Amino acid sequence: MALLGCGVVGTEVVRLLNERAGDLAARVGAPLELAGIAVRRPDRVREGVDPALLTTDAEALVTRPDVDIVVEVIGGIEPARSLLLAAMKTGKSVITANKALLAEDGATLFAAARECNADLYYEASVAGAIPLLRPLRESLVGDHVQRVLGIVNGTTNYILDQMDTHGAGFNEALEEAQALGYAEADPTADVEGFDAAAKAAILAQLAFHTPVTAADVHREGITEVTAADVAGAKEMDSVVKLLAICERVPDGAGGSRGVSVRVHPAMIPRTHPLASVREAYNAVFVEAESAGSLMFYGAGAGGAPTASAVLGDLVAVARNVRGGTPGPLEVTYAELPALPMGDTTTRYYIQLDVADQAGVLAAVAEEFARNDVSIRAVRQEGVGENAQLVVVTHRAPDAALAATVETLRKLGTVREVASVMRVEGDE
Amino acid sequence: MALLGCGVVGTEVVRLLNERAGDLAARVGAPLELAGIAVRRPDRVREGVDPALLTTDAEALVTRPDVDIVVEVIGGIEPARSLLLAAMKTGKSVITANKALLAEDGATLFAAARECNADLYYEASVAGAIPLLRPLRESLVGDHVQRVLGIVNGTTNYILDQMDTHGAGFNEALEEAQALGYAEADPTADVEGFDAAAKAAILAQLAFHTPVTAADVHREGITEVTAADVAGAKEMDSVVKLLAICERVPDGAGGSRGVSVRVHPAMIPRTHPLASVREAYNAVFVEAESAGSLMFYGAGAGGAPTASAVLGDLVAVARNVRGGTPGPLEVTYAELPALPMGDTTTRYYIQLDVADQAGVLAAVAEEFARNDVSIRAVRQEGVGENAQLVVVTHRAPDAALAATVETLRKLGTVREVASVMRVEGDE
Repeated sequence: MALLGCGVVGTEVVRLLNERAGDLAARVGAPLELAGIAVRRPDRVREGVDPALLTTDAEALVTRPDVDIVVEVIGGIEPARSLLLAAMKTGKSVITANKALLAEDGATLFAAARECNADLYYEASVAGAIPLLRPLRESLVGDHVQRVLGIVNGTTNYILDQMDTHGAGFNEALEEAQALGYAEADPTADVEGFDAAAKAAILAQLAFHTPVTAADVHREGITEVTAADVAGAKEMDSVVKLLAICERVPDGAGGSRGVSVRVHPAMIPRTHPLASVREAYNAVFVEAESAGSLMFYGAGAGGAPTASAVLGDLVAVARNVRGGTPGPLEVTYAELPALPMGDTTTRYYIQLDVADQAGVLAAVAEEFARNDVSIRAVRQEGVGENAQLVVVTHRAPDAALAATVETLRKLGTVREVASVMRVEGDE
Repeated sequence: MALLGCGVVGTEVVRLLNERAGDLAARVGAPLELAGIAVRRPDRVREGVDPALLTTDAEALVTRPDVDIVVEVIGGIEPARSLLLAAMKTGKSVITANKALLAEDGATLFAAARECNADLYYEASVAGAIPLLRPLRESLVGDHVQRVLGIVNGTTNYILDQMDTHGAGFNEALEEAQALGYAEADPTADVEGFDAAAKAAILAQLAFHTPVTAADVHREGITEVTAADVAGAKEMDSVVKLLAICERVPDGAGGSRGVSVRVHPAMIPRTHPLASVREAYNAVFVEAESAGSLMFYGAGAGGAPTASAVLGDLVAVARNVRGGTPGPLEVTYAELPALPMGDTTTRYYIQLDVADQAGVLAAVAEEFARNDVSIRAVRQEGVGENAQLVVVTHRAPDAALAATVETLRKLGTVREVASVMRVEGDE
């Protein structure tokens, strides 16, 4: 086997290959031999890594005849894609932890794996060590997945958990996350939801057997989540989480009209299993027709968990290579369209600061009715300057809900739309 | 393929094979054809099941040349074992949901699968639809599992949840569970922990790659859990759960002295992910060296979830059969002894009704010291008739802890040992 990349994850993979060589050989039926490691800077010191294995010529390494499995932990689109394709074309099976590549161009990789009769395993690409892709790909393969709700970004979950636990504001919680190493100096990829969106695309492809790319994912981050939003959720006995949501949208005739794939903050009730996912942990909640509700929980990132996922794939692929038959291939046989966000039905929680006068509720209710949005519950609180109206809707097209909020902003009796949050997980 | 048994699960498997025939064929690459169903009473009406498929001659069915896969959902030891062995000997691959058989004589089945080069899949045998065996068997195969803590019996979890939520006593909660169909008229297998013990044996075999039978499992049920125990846990911000616990016991030299496999009620902190597993849900919490903490959650029983797990196995096995290579076989290459409960280190919570007089704490503390048990925390509460002492220990051999409790019972200043409960999950 060959390793591409030797950063935090790669170094840990090498360490585990050495430390658990006996165990791994027993499970595969033959020893795993590391033929070479492609790196950009071979002179950098890497603890526990034999310098004689290092090479800067990744192209040569992935096509070497004594290499049968290629593990890619470089990340990014290129050169990772070209190297994986070159490896498969010369008969190698591949393992990758590359969520960006799978979310942008998974279809090309899956097609190459099919053509070349190669294994393409990528458990480490979503939710680190949590065995998730294999259950979705294999265990639930005889079932119908209806919906996937995931907390798939540890940084944003840590920030939202701090806001919930300590009443902190977003900026304060972000600074703490950065100080503790949970968030990067430039937190954009996490807090704007890009990381979660890539994972949502991969999950949707697997769950619905249909091609979905990161560009198909509606994405909203958590930078606009306020302490008021979190406090409002608390009053509803709920909690705000950044969710990656993949839903099959029925066509009313027993089939599917398409899929809705999106990342946005949402309120979920505290009794929901996802609500108890604290700190930087990840979890993915799956609703399937026969299996019912399932949840997979664990560490979503980090060198050791990611390396554990890579090793699990490595043992599976090595067994397949020894047996002469690749594992189950990706089957993207459905061609369900990704629906625009406006078409997706969601529910809204809306908190309004209102003038404390008769007729406010009637005026507000009329705006909902005008947009064909049905109200599930309404609560009036406070008096005078502090009068508030809290409205929770039934399901409606997101566009209609957003339009309602816009008209409410212009309503004379509404002083401020204090909080707007989608609601998930309690039907 | 052939089906053995056509009760709740079997009927649901047949229904799904018909309803999802197109999907399943796409995922396998060829249609799944049901050649026959072995039942004891062919004249019973089974909705959606073609009577022409029914036969009472299971022996003939499992060796028919046009059958390549046998699915067993009969349950019990015999005739299930003989039929599965006969099927494998004639080159069939098998799928079973039979936890009793796997826990009592898994070794015989695994050996037959190896000899016959047959697939033996059994996802449905533990925790229903929760994809658990496959992740343990395949995803975590490159990792070192240290400990498995499982809520694997829905009936007892429902009862304990009712006791926690409504302050009900055991008998009251059991009656309610029976009225709702969560508990059987004879609840022994559930409430005495037999069902959980069988699942613990299967989990331990998988997690530690070592043979473990139900007879190796130390088993205590929940019939002696009192409202006082549950209230005591509440005061500790904890909750009482019936746990299946599989632990690797280190030998102090980097290796393993053995495994501890046990089922008993235990207190876990409310912040632990297992604490939020409510009603009749199941969940299995896994601690692995590299992957860290993982949890798998879902419905643990029921026709549809169990059938979903069977179908997942069926697709995998059918793909293997088409590919001509069986999936990864069970590797039970370690021969770790199952340690007796007395040798297992645990922690105790002990609540004592004591005489309200000076020196009680000193006398109690002396008994702990005499048994070499170190106290982690102690709390004195109440006065006079209601004086109580709550002690939580550090880890110690279970035999030493049990001996301490026995001597405390005889201590003059201790009026009653009001509650004794092991403590898990907060180290």
